[in-house]
Amino acid sequence: MKKKPHVAIVGATGAVGVEMIRTLERRNFPAGKITLLASARSAGKTLKYHDEEITVAELTDQSFKNVDIALFSAGGDISRAFASIAVEAGAVVVDNSSAFRMDPDVPLVVPEINAADIAGHHGIIANPNCTTAITLMALYPLHAAFTVTRIFASTYQAVSGTGANAIKELEQQVSQIVKRKKVTRSVYPHQIAFNALPHVDQFLNSGYTKEEMKMENEGRKIMHHPGFQASVTCVRIPVYRAHSVSVSAEFEKPITVDEARRILEAAPGIDLIDNPDSNEYPTPLDQAEKDNCAVGRLRKDCALQNGLCFWVAGDQLLKGAALNAVQIAEALLKM
Amino acid sequence: MKKKPHVAIVGATGAVGVEMIRTLERRNFPAGKITLLASARSAGKTLKYHDEEITVAELTDQSFKNVDIALFSAGGDISRAFASIAVEAGAVVVDNSSAFRMDPDVPLVVPEINAADIAGHHGIIANPNCTTAITLMALYPLHAAFTVTRIFASTYQAVSGTGANAIKELEQQVSQIVKRKKVTRSVYPHQIAFNALPHVDQFLNSGYTKEEMKMENEGRKIMHHPGFQASVTCVRIPVYRAHSVSVSAEFEKPITVDEARRILEAAPGIDLIDNPDSNEYPTPLDQAEKDNCAVGRLRKDCALQNGLCFWVAGDQLLKGAALNAVQIAEALLKM
Repeated sequence: MKKKPHVAIVGATGAVGVEMIRTLERRNFPAGKITLLASARSAGKTLKYHDEEITVAELTDQSFKNVDIALFSAGGDISRAFASIAVEAGAVVVDNSSAFRMDPDVPLVVPEINAADIAGHHGIIANPNCTTAITLMALYPLHAAFTVTRIFASTYQAVSGTGANAIKELEQQVSQIVKRKKVTRSVYPHQIAFNALPHVDQFLNSGYTKEEMKMENEGRKIMHHPGFQASVTCVRIPVYRAHSVSVSAEFEKPITVDEARRILEAAPGIDLIDNPDSNEYPTPLDQAEKDNCAVGRLRKDCALQNGLCFWVAGDQLLKGAALNAVQIAEALLKM
Repeated sequence: MKKKPHVAIVGATGAVGVEMIRTLERRNFPAGKITLLASARSAGKTLKYHDEEITVAELTDQSFKNVDIALFSAGGDISRAFASIAVEAGAVVVDNSSAFRMDPDVPLVVPEINAADIAGHHGIIANPNCTTAITLMALYPLHAAFTVTRIFASTYQAVSGTGANAIKELEQQVSQIVKRKKVTRSVYPHQIAFNALPHVDQFLNSGYTKEEMKMENEGRKIMHHPGFQASVTCVRIPVYRAHSVSVSAEFEKPITVDEARRILEAAPGIDLIDNPDSNEYPTPLDQAEKDNCAVGRLRKDCALQNGLCFWVAGDQLLKGAALNAVQIAEALLKM
């Protein structure tokens, strides 16, 4: 990889795209050039990168000439249509959609866990599901020490996971309620303000949603742990941008809270916030706009033999998306 | 019990007290007289019961003369101080606080589950914790058929569970945010608007909160099932008045989704809302102000042998408090 690569962002005007730009800036990514791509509807807008005003161009088959790294975050359909075009043009694609995550030829990477898998790429590297990435930031260090067998998890997911439209929908509904106006909706099938929807992504015949099965499927691949089981319920709540997850985890080896605490304190990319006596535990509001995830509420699970309960929260747009993608790009630079 | 009993409501001006009045009205409870009691601060206020304006009196040692049924919902300290005074004056106390729930001399009752326990009372009958009552409305019918061994549950609890002050705090914070003013707080240790707090009730040395252990302790007593295990994480979210719970339940006997569906369709006090294809599942907003709880998202738990996942929601002020108390009073009338 060039020392000053040309980076393209596909879906630059979306909630994740904007965070990708901010994350490249904040981490002083040594980009030689930045190209911002989006649909025809968004083309022509300008976005700032450091002091430069960059005009967003329309994504076409010709967009990837001389591009070294292409960060995709414009949904699975766009990734399926354009990732191979970018690869043929010579770019390495870091894809934030679910399109290629389970493809055996595509590494699925959380750099703190399986950065070494990046070396096996054939042009595309997948960024994991946001909830999976955030949960594994706490679970993997414990797995490395005690070998996780299964987890029972329930999520508390922010509207930013659905995109910029959903953020607007929550703002609008709250404003309508404060002004005692009729509540309108177009993004979610039910009002999201002051509500909780046990529905993230599409329903499968099993009764689980696609989102719920990502934890098990992507967790197995990222942790190289084919026996890992995850029973997950994914719930959307009226929070703007960080996801939280309540986890009961069972391990093969005996685990104590003190050992878990010691391991999580030393783990990369995650902060231990766990002083219940002074009301200190992670909250999604505190984690918003932070690179690190946070874990707390550690306790021996009272219904499992070798079990630990914990609560993990992380910015869905950062570790759950943009930050993880930029970290993969940084790892590519070192190769 | 008299056919037209004199009913006192202790804590009449609180969030639950007001719902007790509404519930007695709505169910045409045959009260001969209603006495409304509260602290000195609230005494003198008037509240409507049917067409009658009733002045709230200050709670004193003399308040229970001629009272037949006293519905207490003014916190554990008030119950500990005044319940025995009410009993000595000849009243039967239905107590919504946690003060007596685990007392072996006090029946702890969800009428749809263990109404027969009421007969064993010695003057006090306890109303269960709100989250426990709502969860058991779905769990107990399944337990009766398949014998539950343990559950892993995460809650999504409304601010009404904290009381009228917390409802005001959420309203105020939302209004402050919409008007771009500084957010203030006094009830919760962190902002509750657009946030999720993994903290309901006090922390124990084990790392669990008192609220989290109520599910196991009260569940064992209500279901007459001392081996029942419950690993619970209780979370407060910005919802006004109904609680929701995500449950993974393990059973001794094999269970299928179809059998569970058939049992829950026939169960009293709970509605099955489970048509994911048309986005039909319980939400707390839909359950607000409804007597029945609702259960949905039924599916075979993918990490348990004989396991079922479900999502249950119910109005915390009704089945979680006022309705259950009035149902106990109704059962007393029939004895």
